[in-house]
Amino acid sequence: MKIVSYPTKEELSELVKRSSVKDPTLASTVRSVLARVRQEGDKALLALEQQFDAPLLTDIVVTSAEMEAASAKVDDSLKKAIQTAKRNIELFHRSQKLVVNPVETTPGVVCWQQQVAIQSVGLYIPGGTAPLFSTVLMLGIPATIAGCKEIVLCTPPNKDGSIHPTILYAASLVGITKIFKAGGAQAIAAMSYGTASVPKVHKIFGPGNQYVMEAKMQVSLDGLAIDMPAGPSEVLVVADESASPIFIAADLLSQAEHGKDSQAILVTTSPQLVEEVAAEVEQQLAQLPRQEIAQFSIANSSILLVHTLDEAVAFVNAYAPEHLLLQTKNYREVATQIVNAGSVFLGMYAPESAGDYASGTNHTLPTHGYAKAYSGVNLDSFMKKITYQEITTDGIRSLGPTIEEMALNEELYAHKNAVTVRLDYLQKKK
Amino acid sequence: MKIVSYPTKEELSELVKRSSVKDPTLASTVRSVLARVRQEGDKALLALEQQFDAPLLTDIVVTSAEMEAASAKVDDSLKKAIQTAKRNIELFHRSQKLVVNPVETTPGVVCWQQQVAIQSVGLYIPGGTAPLFSTVLMLGIPATIAGCKEIVLCTPPNKDGSIHPTILYAASLVGITKIFKAGGAQAIAAMSYGTASVPKVHKIFGPGNQYVMEAKMQVSLDGLAIDMPAGPSEVLVVADESASPIFIAADLLSQAEHGKDSQAILVTTSPQLVEEVAAEVEQQLAQLPRQEIAQFSIANSSILLVHTLDEAVAFVNAYAPEHLLLQTKNYREVATQIVNAGSVFLGMYAPESAGDYASGTNHTLPTHGYAKAYSGVNLDSFMKKITYQEITTDGIRSLGPTIEEMALNEELYAHKNAVTVRLDYLQKKK
Repeated sequence: MKIVSYPTKEELSELVKRSSVKDPTLASTVRSVLARVRQEGDKALLALEQQFDAPLLTDIVVTSAEMEAASAKVDDSLKKAIQTAKRNIELFHRSQKLVVNPVETTPGVVCWQQQVAIQSVGLYIPGGTAPLFSTVLMLGIPATIAGCKEIVLCTPPNKDGSIHPTILYAASLVGITKIFKAGGAQAIAAMSYGTASVPKVHKIFGPGNQYVMEAKMQVSLDGLAIDMPAGPSEVLVVADESASPIFIAADLLSQAEHGKDSQAILVTTSPQLVEEVAAEVEQQLAQLPRQEIAQFSIANSSILLVHTLDEAVAFVNAYAPEHLLLQTKNYREVATQIVNAGSVFLGMYAPESAGDYASGTNHTLPTHGYAKAYSGVNLDSFMKKITYQEITTDGIRSLGPTIEEMALNEELYAHKNAVTVRLDYLQKKK
Repeated sequence: MKIVSYPTKEELSELVKRSSVKDPTLASTVRSVLARVRQEGDKALLALEQQFDAPLLTDIVVTSAEMEAASAKVDDSLKKAIQTAKRNIELFHRSQKLVVNPVETTPGVVCWQQQVAIQSVGLYIPGGTAPLFSTVLMLGIPATIAGCKEIVLCTPPNKDGSIHPTILYAASLVGITKIFKAGGAQAIAAMSYGTASVPKVHKIFGPGNQYVMEAKMQVSLDGLAIDMPAGPSEVLVVADESASPIFIAADLLSQAEHGKDSQAILVTTSPQLVEEVAAEVEQQLAQLPRQEIAQFSIANSSILLVHTLDEAVAFVNAYAPEHLLLQTKNYREVATQIVNAGSVFLGMYAPESAGDYASGTNHTLPTHGYAKAYSGVNLDSFMKKITYQEITTDGIRSLGPTIEEMALNEELYAHKNAVTVRLDYLQKKK
């Protein structure tokens, strides 16, 4: 790891930066995939899946027989863990329901917000060597609690055309039934524009590789909603002398193993901790099966030694980390000063992996500094707020003149008139 | 108005469509403006303002002297109306603050969400013949309630280089002090990338012409947050035989005067109302000062006669109107069936202009069917939700094995290890 002691302003502003190297052909490649699926539908989708994922695939639809068979293939111990995680994620996301709270802004004028589910949503679950069933929970559970009528899930098949049974088990446990063997930009296209098999959705969620991300950004230009823009995953640990170097090293490495572009940063006030963590990272790294990935990203990660926790907090807010771990004596006090972060883990017994899997919070979080303007996925990511106003005769009588005056001054005469005709009517009725 | 009696399925699906004619040169024009301002900053901004808005403009910054002078130029009656509207908008948006609600998902594992202001936001207020001071209230008030540290406002100057005093009065009343004479794509560029004068913001709000909208979409590809995509304004009225043709005609016209591309639709179960509204629209139209605009959009607007209110509701949900007016006897019952709309106006005494100005709800709403996935501007548009989890030794002891099992099955060994080192430590400590 790079060690930076008492960084200068310039060094800090360099450390805040994220790399954003983009393949220059990415946009046009994705654009042509989107256009092709939009035009040719299922035919293009199957052809692209055969080309990129499963050469012998004959159908993109996951059948109910496949769903049933999957459950038998998942170990009971894993099933139990998934059920425990599901229960916690449900408890936390259910607590996020908006309570309707009518406000009488003027006698006779009552306003309120109501949360309504986005009727049709699409969830993308990336492929790869390991099955990301936890993301099925993180997206599927709030979607079902929100009451989304149609929940579509796309995930790329393995080379033999199958989907990992744990993905199917998690989906079935959550109540998702429309699952398609489709990945990459073609999956995003299918959910955005609809095909004969894949329903068109109103909002698309989920992580993915650069093709998936670019496709999400491109369809968002067509007005399709997406959860958030995304970049590589990252963790920032703030620690003082009370923290454990063993725990911190493990936390940094758990971020580092995600991918070669993952970022792990420790900011600390303790010179001793700097040395200890650096040594402990080397030691734990040597024992990891995914060594080569973690080694690469750890080499690009940093330990910052600062004078005070205030400096640490200032760095956090400038960096806006996806995951923030506060391992200081007074972590609650530090937490009150955080304004930019995705999810915050409080205390030395709160590793990032707790939130990644089972504490109950969502693990779909803003990376790349996007936490400055974006929330992570929450229940309300799957809902819209509709505002209501109910106005009585008394209400329009007392509020009417205000509206008329304002409309007149914005030169919107018909806006004024919509009030005037009502006030005239009530006047005559008297 | 076009009258469509008992429309077929095909006719209905045509009526749901929005026109989306886009100037084919728009994207590249905007792209070059963004690039120029990004590169040359204030110099480009001033040059573009001189070119498009105010030939003799010498400075884009609104001075405090201009702010003070503005107040004296606004009539007291208008000031009073603006203050009344402000009070109502404040009352409603303040009521939207999230109450922190910690949930203990497992003994020793407590999760909660906290709302934190987006630290820096940009508000765009369009120019034109009339000063849209109401939009200053609708964006500025929630921004200040949220606690945004930096609130930047851009609005194009008049030809003489001034900003309408009512815009400045409203901004000052709300507490906005950083105001710039800048419009179009160049204003969006300045707020997105920052210039020597204009601070870089994290999220941009506000309506605008096609250049502004295109610029917002393009900067969103760079990860800048925007309030929502936008199209022409629209109203949909659902009415039964209890409704007033005079009121409805006034409501349709108040939408129609917004612009030539505005859409106004009435869906009713009453054949008599169809005739009466059509006649009343003609009559009221003849008396409007902005006749030529309203005439144009009314000619493209429709009255739909349907058999039942259920059919009307189905059309509403397929259309997803920006503004929905329910003028039926049982409007509350009808309201419970609405899943796609921006803002809903309940009862015959609730004209759209009430929400446009002063009822308390926000008038920045999703058009073009975007209400299927987007909310209108609310307090939370100016805030992010950060999630927190606090975990005790008991918490990690009971949740740890679940996390370990899941991490192992996702082949994320360092994720597992971050729990294992903690459980091992607690085991030894015993």
